[in-house]
Amino acid sequence: MDKKAVDYSLYLVTDRELLGNKDLAATVEEAIKGGTTLVQIREKNVSTLDFFELALVVKQIAGKYNVPFIINDRIDIALAIDADGVHIGQEDMPLAVARKLLGPTKIIGVSASTLEEAVKAQDGGADYLGVGAVFPTRTKSDADHVSLAALRRIKEGVSVPVVAIGGIDKDTIQRVIEAGADGAAVVSAIIASADPYQAACNLRHIIKK
Amino acid sequence: MDKKAVDYSLYLVTDRELLGNKDLAATVEEAIKGGTTLVQIREKNVSTLDFFELALVVKQIAGKYNVPFIINDRIDIALAIDADGVHIGQEDMPLAVARKLLGPTKIIGVSASTLEEAVKAQDGGADYLGVGAVFPTRTKSDADHVSLAALRRIKEGVSVPVVAIGGIDKDTIQRVIEAGADGAAVVSAIIASADPYQAACNLRHIIKK
Repeated sequence: MDKKAVDYSLYLVTDRELLGNKDLAATVEEAIKGGTTLVQIREKNVSTLDFFELALVVKQIAGKYNVPFIINDRIDIALAIDADGVHIGQEDMPLAVARKLLGPTKIIGVSASTLEEAVKAQDGGADYLGVGAVFPTRTKSDADHVSLAALRRIKEGVSVPVVAIGGIDKDTIQRVIEAGADGAAVVSAIIASADPYQAACNLRHIIKK
Repeated sequence: MDKKAVDYSLYLVTDRELLGNKDLAATVEEAIKGGTTLVQIREKNVSTLDFFELALVVKQIAGKYNVPFIINDRIDIALAIDADGVHIGQEDMPLAVARKLLGPTKIIGVSASTLEEAVKAQDGGADYLGVGAVFPTRTKSDADHVSLAALRRIKEGVSVPVVAIGGIDKDTIQRVIEAGADGAAVVSAIIASADPYQAACNLRHIIKK
């Protein structure tokens, strides 16, 4: 995988608790068919074994469509299944340690809610930044708030891709792209949708405009 | 570290939630001074960063006394701090994957509550087995129960060291050693004690008898 060529524009983050009666693997596949460009598995409150097995399944699907596939937080899971990378928050493994464990070729994304955190992560070798929460979100209630103006300042202050996250759906996605984000990370707008394929299509259509 | 020479006899498992007002690092140091022969950091409900930082501190203490130091479940933390090994449960990373990630020289212990699990773990390359819960325990409410007779059968059915766990304290430790265990894993009897040094001394004294 060429890290420089990764398309972050429609970035899917999973959350099993939002699936309803749907299957996670099938939901991810529909979302990819609809235009999702990258998949991050983010699962809390699951055993390591369940996370590992889930990641293996989703890796196969992402691989089938040649979509990059990364793991939230858990570097052990990423190493175990040879994922394309990890996404780490400010309370996860220090970036330098993560890079040492994963090596230079893997994608490492870092959450940043301030320009200072963003610059520090970039200087530390992050491949992209996850910036948010740009809108109120139910899926990460402890997230800091980042205004669209602050998102724009962060984008202007770094050279690595910036992915906005937090409460992004079909009604709000245009605003984060207009604010300069290279991509929008979406959780419930796809995962909780009754039609993940159509939901992804709609979001992708707005991004491309 | 020579894996074959590890002394499992008084095996301390941490749990920050039982510390009361005590400091974890100081408690571990007192426990080691009192005769603890191995330390496992087992922390749930903490961030990866907190686990990493805690593990770094405890590693230094264990290293100072030349006591093996292993991590529960989280192979990423073990790799990050170069721990002596990991302990994995039946819901954690599969043993073969853990071994591949950690290499042949690290200690890998596996939880087993039946002879079948014990033999499978041994055949898969486990260095020791954690068997329990031999007595009712508050610190792992979902644990299976293993009778002392079952503990003895497991010990007789494998050649790797067997460490009994679950509700072991000064009143019960003699019974697990008499049942054939190579060691006793202790959580609250040391961690929750007002005097971890004396608690460890007392347990060690009973084991040596």
